[in-house]
Formats: sequence, C-alpha cells, structure tokens
Amino acid sequence: MKAAIVGATGTVGQRFVSLLAAHPQFRVAELVASERSAGRTYGEACRWVLNEEMPANVRGMEVKLATDDIDADVVFSAAPAGTAGSIETDLAKRGFKVFSNAKDHRMDPRVPLLIPEVNPDHLALVEKQATDGFIVTDPNCSAAVLTMSLRPLMPFGIQDVVVTTLQALSGAGYPGVPSLDSVANVVPFISGEEAKIETEPPKMLGKLTSGSVTPARIRISATATRVPVEEGHSMSVALKLAKRPRPESLIEAWDGFTARPQKLKLPSAPRKPVVYRTEDDRPQPRKDWSRERGMGVSVGRLRRDPILTYKYFASGSNTVRGAAGCSVLNAELAKAEGYL
Amino acid sequence: MKAAIVGATGTVGQRFVSLLAAHPQFRVAELVASERSAGRTYGEACRWVLNEEMPANVRGMEVKLATDDIDADVVFSAAPAGTAGSIETDLAKRGFKVFSNAKDHRMDPRVPLLIPEVNPDHLALVEKQATDGFIVTDPNCSAAVLTMSLRPLMPFGIQDVVVTTLQALSGAGYPGVPSLDSVANVVPFISGEEAKIETEPPKMLGKLTSGSVTPARIRISATATRVPVEEGHSMSVALKLAKRPRPESLIEAWDGFTARPQKLKLPSAPRKPVVYRTEDDRPQPRKDWSRERGMGVSVGRLRRDPILTYKYFASGSNTVRGAAGCSVLNAELAKAEGYL
Amino acid sequence: MKAAIVGATGTVGQRFVSLLAAHPQFRVAELVASERSAGRTYGEACRWVLNEEMPANVRGMEVKLATDDIDADVVFSAAPAGTAGSIETDLAKRGFKVFSNAKDHRMDPRVPLLIPEVNPDHLALVEKQATDGFIVTDPNCSAAVLTMSLRPLMPFGIQDVVVTTLQALSGAGYPGVPSLDSVANVVPFISGEEAKIETEPPKMLGKLTSGSVTPARIRISATATRVPVEEGHSMSVALKLAKRPRPESLIEAWDGFTARPQKLKLPSAPRKPVVYRTEDDRPQPRKDWSRERGMGVSVGRLRRDPILTYKYFASGSNTVRGAAGCSVLNAELAKAEGYL
Amino acid sequence: MKAAIVGATGTVGQRFVSLLAAHPQFRVAELVASERSAGRTYGEACRWVLNEEMPANVRGMEVKLATDDIDADVVFSAAPAGTAGSIETDLAKRGFKVFSNAKDHRMDPRVPLLIPEVNPDHLALVEKQATDGFIVTDPNCSAAVLTMSLRPLMPFGIQDVVVTTLQALSGAGYPGVPSLDSVANVVPFISGEEAKIETEPPKMLGKLTSGSVTPARIRISATATRVPVEEGHSMSVALKLAKRPRPESLIEAWDGFTARPQKLKLPSAPRKPVVYRTEDDRPQPRKDWSRERGMGVSVGRLRRDPILTYKYFASGSNTVRGAAGCSVLNAELAKAEGYL
Repeated sequence: MKAAIVGATGTVGQRFVSLLAAHPQFRVAELVASERSAGRTYGEACRWVLNEEMPANVRGMEVKLATDDIDADVVFSAAPAGTAGSIETDLAKRGFKVFSNAKDHRMDPRVPLLIPEVNPDHLALVEKQATDGFIVTDPNCSAAVLTMSLRPLMPFGIQDVVVTTLQALSGAGYPGVPSLDSVANVVPFISGEEAKIETEPPKMLGKLTSGSVTPARIRISATATRVPVEEGHSMSVALKLAKRPRPESLIEAWDGFTARPQKLKLPSAPRKPVVYRTEDDRPQPRKDWSRERGMGVSVGRLRRDPILTYKYFASGSNTVRGAAGCSVLNAELAKAEGYL
Repeated sequence: MKAAIVGATGTVGQRFVSLLAAHPQFRVAELVASERSAGRTYGEACRWVLNEEMPANVRGMEVKLATDDIDADVVFSAAPAGTAGSIETDLAKRGFKVFSNAKDHRMDPRVPLLIPEVNPDHLALVEKQATDGFIVTDPNCSAAVLTMSLRPLMPFGIQDVVVTTLQALSGAGYPGVPSLDSVANVVPFISGEEAKIETEPPKMLGKLTSGSVTPARIRISATATRVPVEEGHSMSVALKLAKRPRPESLIEAWDGFTARPQKLKLPSAPRKPVVYRTEDDRPQPRKDWSRERGMGVSVGRLRRDPILTYKYFASGSNTVRGAAGCSVLNAELAKAEGYL
Repeated sequence: MKAAIVGATGTVGQRFVSLLAAHPQFRVAELVASERSAGRTYGEACRWVLNEEMPANVRGMEVKLATDDIDADVVFSAAPAGTAGSIETDLAKRGFKVFSNAKDHRMDPRVPLLIPEVNPDHLALVEKQATDGFIVTDPNCSAAVLTMSLRPLMPFGIQDVVVTTLQALSGAGYPGVPSLDSVANVVPFISGEEAKIETEPPKMLGKLTSGSVTPARIRISATATRVPVEEGHSMSVALKLAKRPRPESLIEAWDGFTARPQKLKLPSAPRKPVVYRTEDDRPQPRKDWSRERGMGVSVGRLRRDPILTYKYFASGSNTVRGAAGCSVLNAELAKAEGYL
Repeated sequence: MKAAIVGATGTVGQRFVSLLAAHPQFRVAELVASERSAGRTYGEACRWVLNEEMPANVRGMEVKLATDDIDADVVFSAAPAGTAGSIETDLAKRGFKVFSNAKDHRMDPRVPLLIPEVNPDHLALVEKQATDGFIVTDPNCSAAVLTMSLRPLMPFGIQDVVVTTLQALSGAGYPGVPSLDSVANVVPFISGEEAKIETEPPKMLGKLTSGSVTPARIRISATATRVPVEEGHSMSVALKLAKRPRPESLIEAWDGFTARPQKLKLPSAPRKPVVYRTEDDRPQPRKDWSRERGMGVSVGRLRRDPILTYKYFASGSNTVRGAAGCSVLNAELAKAEGYL
C-alpha cells in the first residue's frame, strides 16, 4: 500500500520514513511538508537527525504540500501540533485514512486514541466520523509508555496513579532542547506534557459502548522532567489498586500480557509488549529502549507502596513505541481489521 | 577550635576539608583515615576529586588512625557506613564531640538527627548520651533537601509525601558510579536510599518531649534514581495536607522561612534556607545547587495535585547542604548553644 | 565609569553584565540590543542563561537601540558577527571607546586584537583610527587560550603549531548546539573557527613597529571539535621550536609568566595568567576553567614530540578569558594607560 | 568450530560472546576467566554491561580456568594486559590457535599484529612460532581506527602523522572511568595509550619479507583524550605525504578501498571498510560507530594542512572494529587461508 508522510522533515516524520523503509505492507509514496520544503527533494529539504542513515529511495523524492494531489492509500501524520488539526481534518474529508502522531484530535470523542495492545476495539470509532476517510491518533509519548504498563494491571482495579517522568531529549524534536540547558542537568518542565499524561490514559483505558468511549475512572497526577538521555522515556509510577494482589500477580500480568497485535502477528508488533526486569537497577532508558526494535516497554522495581498500593519503574522508546512506531502499528491493525 | 576530620580522604571528607579551609571558628587540626592512608601525608594519601583545589595547609599533614591520639575540640566524621558506628561510639566515649555524616547512628533514639533549620531543639538529646563526648548526625542527602522543603509546610498538616528523586553522581562518592552506567542514562536504583528517605524526615520533623523524639506522623513513599548530573539532588514531591491552603500560602511559608541558625547568624547559615523560584522550569540542579554556597534549597513548580493536595519540585546541594555543610552548621549551632 | 553593553541579551552580553556587576571601575549604565528587545526592560527582554543569577540592578533597566542616545564612557560589544562591524564603526565615529568581542574588526590593521598579557603595546594602534572614539577587539575564544599558552614560549622560537580543540557548548551561545547533536557525542565542526585559530594568534604575537603590526611568522594548523562540556575550551597542541630547550625551561616560562596587567594590578588580572599542572591528567575543562575567576589558563602534559618539538594540553574559560573577561581586562588596561 | 573465550567476563570478553552468538563459523564452547569466576555459571560470574542482552545459551555455561582442560578449535583472548602474555603463550604451547586482544604480544616479532584489511599477508608470521598452536593479536582500539584510515593512503607516501584522539568511555572497560571524572568533562590522559598509537601502526603498515616485518617508516605523534561518549573513538589526524595528490584522490582511495576480507567475503567483513562522509560535521562517534555492525571506519573533513599535507577526522567503533570484532575477523581470515 502506498503511504504518504505528512510533516516528513521533522524528527517524527523522519522516524516514519525510517520505519517504513523496509515495511512489508506500506511503502513511502509521498512526502509532505510545509511551504519551506515543498518543491525540493527530500534530501535537500530535510536535515536528517536520526542515527541511522536516510534511506536511499526517499532522497530524491519531491516534497509536496498537504494541499497538493496526493496518491496514497494511507497517510501518516507527524504534522506539528496546532497545524495538524486542520490539515488532518481536510485530508480525512478528501478520503484519506490518517494515522496521526499529533495531539490535536486525540481527545475528539469520535477519534480513536489508539494503542493496538491497549484498546484495539476503539478503532471502530472511525465509523462515527462523517468523512470519506478517517483519523486515528496515537498518544503522547509518555502516555504511551505509561498506558502500556498500566493495561495489564487493569484487572486489579487501578484507581490512582502518581507518576514522575524522566524524559529523553529526542522527545523534544530538533533542534529541541538547547545543549546548554540539558548538559549535566535536569529541566523539570515540558510544556503541556503533564496535562496529556493525565488525560490520555483514561480515554485509552476506557470502555467503548454504543459508539462512544467512557473514560476509565483513574486519577493521574503527573510531573514531567527532562534528563540528558538520547532516547527512552522513563517513569516512576505509584498506583492505588482496588484489590490487594501479591506482587507475583502483577509480574505475571505484565510478562504474560499479549493482545490483538500479537494474535494477528502484525509486522510491527513486539513479541512481548511488556517485560518485567528482575534486576535491581532496571529498566534503564539507554539499555532498554531498543528492545523489540523499540516497540517493547520494560518495567521493573515493583515494590509495595506505603501510601498507595504498589510502585514500579517503567521505560520505553519515545520515538518508536511512543510515536511513529505506534502509528504504524495502528495502521497495521486497521489493515488487518479491514479498515484500509 | 581544633577540628579533626575522620574519613578525611573520601569525597565527603574532602568536602569537610574544603568547607573548613576558611572557617572562622573551626580549623583542621587532625586528619583521620583508614590503615591504608595512615602515616602518609594527606597530599599523598588522598585522591582529591573536588573541582576546587586541595587547600595548601592540609597537604603536608600526616594522616592518623582513629585509634591514635587526637588533639581536637570537635570531630567531623565522614567515615563510611558500617565502620562509622563503632568508630564514632568509641570517639564519644573518649570525650569527643562528633558530628557525623554516616547513617549508622541516625536512628538511635539518643542521637540527634539534626538540621539546624528544622529541629534545632533536638540537639538537647545529646544530654541523654552516657558518654563524656556525644554524637550528632546529619541526614541522608536526599532526606536533607526533602526535609528542608517540608519544614516550612508543617503548619498545613503534612500527612503523606510521594517523592521521586533524581540524584547527582557526586552523591555516590568516588569512584562511585561507573561512567558506562551513567552516560546518557538513568539508573533507577540507589542501594538503601529509599528507606532513608522514608524514615529520616519523620524523626527530624518529630517532637522532642521528655527527652525523646516522637516521630511526625507523616507517611513517605520514595523512589530514588541516579541521573547524569554532577552535583545537586532534585526531587518531584507530591503531598497530602490536612488543610487546604491557597498556593500563595505555601510560597510565603517557603520564602519567609528562617530559623535558629539565621537568628544566631551562624557562619554557614544561608540567609534564606528555602527559596521559591517563580520560573516555569526551575529549580534545576546544575544552576541552583550552589545558591548560598550550597546551603540553600530551591523549590518551584507548585501545583495542585489531583490525588494528593499539592506537588512541587525541589533541588539542593547533596554534598554541602545534604552532607558536610549540614554537619558544619550542626557544629556551629552546638557551639552557639554552649555544647562545645 | 559608565559602561554600555551592546548585544546585552546574548550569552556574551550576559557575561559582560555579570562581570561588571561588582566591578570597581565600570558600572553598567546602558544596555543595548536589537529591535526585538529595545523598549523592554532587560528582565523581560533577556532569556538569562548563566548559572549565576541576573544582577538585581539591571533587571529593570530599559534596553536601547545602538542608534539611540547612549550615555557611556566605555562600550562593551557582544554584538553578533556580521552586524557588529557597522555598529561598532558607527559607535567609534560617535566618539565611543568600544571593546568588542566580535570578529568583524579583529583583522583590521588599525584595530588592536588585544590580550593584555600578550600584546599590551598593540593598544597604541588605536591612535591610528581616524575617529573620535576607537575600537579594540578581543580574540576568538580558542585563539585566546592558545595564544595565552604560546606567549611565554616565544623566546624559544615558535615556528609551527598543530592544534586540535575540544570546545565547550557555551562557546556556541544560546540556543546554540541542539542537545540531540551533543549528548554523548563529538561534533567535529565549528563554522569559521579553524580560520580564526589559524590567523588571530600570529597577529597578537606580532610586532608593532611604525604604527603597524607585523604578524609573527608562525604557521598554525587547527582542527576544531565540539564536546559535551559546559564551559572551558581545551586543546591538544604540538609545536615546532627553533630552539631545543629542556622541558623544565618551558614549564618555568609558563609558571613564571607575568605581564603588564599583573604589574599594573588591573582588577580583572589573574595573579598567574598561566599555570602548569603537574598531574598526569590535567588540565580538565570542568575542573580548571574557573581558576582565578575564569581568567587563568592551565597547561599540562608537556612531552617531547617525535615530529615537531614539544606537545602539551591547555584549557581555559571560553566565556571569561576567551570572551567577556578579556574585553573587560582590555578596558582596564586602556584605562590604566590613559586611553579612557 | 568450537571457540573458547578467555577473559570472558570483562567488557571485551562480553563483546566476543555477543559477536559469536549468531556467528556462522564459530560457536562459544568454553568460557574462561580468573579464579574469582571459575566454577560458577557465566550468568552468575559476569556482570554484563553491554546494552544488548546476554545471549541465553551462555548463561548457564560453567566458567573455567585457563589451566583447565579446554575443548576448542580456536581461542579468543580478552585477558587483561599483564596476565595475558603468559596465559596466551601457554595456550599456544598446548596447541591452541589464539586470537588475542591483549597488548602483551603485539610487538613480538613473530606475532602478527593483524587487521585483515591492512596486512593480511602478515598472518604468515605464525609459521615462525615454534609452538603447536599460535598467537595472532589485534591492535589497540585507537590504533585500529587510525590504521584503517591510513592504509588506503599508503600509495601517497605517508611520512608523518600527528593525531589527537577523543576516546569513548567503553574503551576503559568496566567499571573504568568514574562518572565524576567524565561527566561534562575531558580527561586528557589514558595510561599507555599514546605509545601504542605511535608504535603499532608502523608494524601493521610494514612489509613482511623473509619472515619478518620491517616497520613502515612513518613517524606518529599521538595525544589521547577521554570524552563523555559511550562508544566510538574519534581522532583528528594531520599527515605529511611524500606526494601531493589532489583531495579527490584521497577520497577515492578511501571510498574505493577493499581488501582480502571483502574478496573472501568473510562473515564479519564490512562491505566498505572505510567511508568518506561529505557532510561538514561528520563523522561523529554516536552516529557513525555502528556502521556495518561496528566494522566500518568513517572519515571526513579532508582539508589541506598548512604545515603538513592534509588533515582529516576519523571515527570508528572501539569495542568492535577496535577490539573483539577485529579478532573475530582475524580468525575468519585464518580459517579462510587454511590456518585453522
């Protein structure tokens, strides 16, 4: 299937390009960016910042505008928040199936905020969208890792979640955080991040009934910090459960967790979506972010909490599992379920 | 007054040496370390790791054993946990006034766990020690910063504290954390640290009545992580209060906070023990640790918490306020109060 | 004396503000920046990035344009390269004594490229400038550290210098280097830097005769790299000498070196401009940049070179000795020599 | 073929384990370490520090002593310098074919100091060893990267090489460099490193005639520094050539370079041993070390040198190309040439 990437020159756009370079189902057919880039080749227009090389086949492709004619079966959007909203709405009206990484439509009641391992049934929401095409979004990068770690624990009755994130530099895009701010330092602020972490997981963990999602009744308190790490968002999580399971039960829930993408053997699906590390000092972002090509989330350090019920530490790739990789898996799920 | 430094060759010992180099009341008269160093000059025995230079006057001093004759009016102990306990007990029996940074005696009911701004009256506990000398300890470095930030809020009825620390490399001593573990990484584990953060603040915030301390009824849940920062322990703090003050009241409590060391104008006392930063993105360890020569604690980002009552971010020097500087201030208080 | 700072909101401008905050001779009277900042208070217009706090007295000062009326006895210019040239020329025509950190006039034959310890006599060049005021420049930050380390060795007949720099992030200003480029990485390119390091030292080490400078006949080959260090430019230097001195002679030349600023006891002059470190592993930028408030240069690791004659390692502050501090010392020299 | 790894618990030993985990010719049959580890399983004895996971098949293998019975067709030695020498000599006497990463035998006249792309014919030296088995060594990690970059330029008559290295933390093993030394810092000293960089390349680039190697007449001046980079040694290189080729000729020499391993299609051979990067700011260690699974060396920034002839920047993996990967390729070459 032919894929267009909107916002293709940014860091998430580049990650889409990289992930689709050898994808068995989607191939990059169109690259879309802003007026500054349109008309130039991707090789010229894009300041490539990923560690891996720019794939050879996209280097000479001409960058288009979102309003140009676009020949694609599926659209991946890495458009910047703010402008993404109207661009994606317009593309959906023109009949495109849009898989977005932008926040603009995430909380729209008719737009699935989707992680295939968490709420694959929410995909059906697209039928409520009164357009020829549709929009599906992936969550905020920290919300993605957090929600992946919470999903297997839902049977224990999650009530409250207190989370402090230690987020990687790649989450801020490029040029992103100035090195003078980040070198040997912590910056305890990321604009808008805490609100996303507090509001997105309840929607994803909510129930779809009669065509609308009732958010899970989970209260979340988030503090977001930036640490001098290249890739991998980590987080300290304390949670209150309705039940009092033994720690072994939580660990089994994580390690045994599989969902629809694993059943459908989707190409980007990790074999084990969540892994519990038994070492004292894991997970660590630099060592653990790339597990299962960046699609696996790692948890560890489960302990009883003297105020809530349990606490643990989680880490996962912010640009793959928490961004482009999630949207690619969303599209794979949509294809497998007949929406593409 | 003549000061002896025990454990003088370690990083905290070096910090004592540095802080006392130009101290108006105490001068370094004796340097004490283990058998490996004893008999050598300090310049030879000590691998100096502080950024500032080794003071010239200590370079040629001979390092002694703790069992040698020691000529000192006051002893600062940076002996390593485990061996510190018996060394300090023995020194107190020999009549020395010991101000210790080690954890061994911190929770002893007759030993003051002392921050002069927090619980100066606890110093009277030393009268219960059945020795000619006495032992006073300072708290764990993260517990010190946390407790300093909590003390001004006590009138609001602190009940629960959920804290995640982001701790500096200097907290691990030398050689401490291998660089291969810490470069561009987070290590979510520091041995023994969480228990100290959970148990020490209630003792310091407790009431001294009839010669014993009743710990404050505050529950603490701590997660300790190591981040690639040179100096300055930072922490995300969420707390539940019995009262519902306006945020301005908390900020006023912090900014207006002074205590006995400020009243007594002790040499090492910061003018403002706690400062509230109004910027979005402060405090930051690299920029804020050295405020008031490392003796000031900085807080910021006060927000209402959807689960507990409020949350904020705090940062302070771990080697000065959280270690050697605190013990020097402890000794200054003891002197001013007639205990030396 | 009243000082104006041009380009006051940038990182070097901020360093001027910070250095003059407690200066015994100059006080900040005017703050000048671009149209974006003009008319606002400095506190509003400036995103302060230094670790130390913005001095209280400048916070409420109104930022002016360079074309406004300026009431100052001396002007420090941190204007950006490219625009600095015409601004400074215009200010000199208006009668101002300008001490600049910009590269635009550095190689002008009638403008002194000045380090007071290196070529104080070059200051006389300003008499050749056909304006009421004059312009004096300081060198590129790496050229400053390199030239300071070379100056004491001139009696040995320096012929060739092969230098590789390892430069700090603060040298790139703010926002400067994106953290995604610098974290755990080396960037082997700094635009325009190598040409400056190759051309500026010969001018400074040259002879002033009959009102013009004949550059020293020293060939320099420079490679400039960026390393993840906050402050302090370091460099590996190999040099070919006409003479074959013993290593002790070079070390004595460095350690014994003093010059006009030390004789005149200028307020910003370091007691020892250059220090030779005898440890195996020094100088190191993080530990050594702040020696003598950032005005001292440290050298070490002197060894015979199998191809040239000797090699050594040098390090010094890029924002103080290599930028604002050098221009402040230049102004102090000008004042002492009767040019202000 | 069955492979034994000596010094298997250290960082280079771990890299051998990792590289051989899926090797088509060699499989790990024996793990050898010191008395501290012997008798325990590898999973227990080894503190695994690589980012990738310990391969499952070695976890339960029992660690042996070098003096135990060893059942192997080939031995890879990562024994520490100092003890490696006698261990390897003894193993060769017992008939083992030893491929070593230790420095002890590198300069022995009868031991090949081997990089398959550089001096494959030197392998024949092993016939001069009067033992049933033999010893082949790989070079120092910086010497490996440097020599790879020099080899294609040999036709231009290399005479002098002035090199400054910027070396990664992984080169120091584990625990290696303390993080307090390396965070936001440069350490301009690595014990013994400069001598290796100055002496090993001439041996490798020398001619084998009548059973002995005549070193190339190339003078090298090396300065070695440590920078806070995880993996990838980088270096600034200036060289004097007998000829005056155009820069294009050097670039063609690098880009077109292939050698015996490429011809033999050895499993670990990179497709392109050396690549010239045309970007202004490459190579960079973090982005370029993993090219061709760590076996490719990257060069860039070729410029004419005002003192010598040309200068350039090079970077390559220190643990793969500069250590374990090189020895594995050495063994592959030996097998292909009939020595195993």
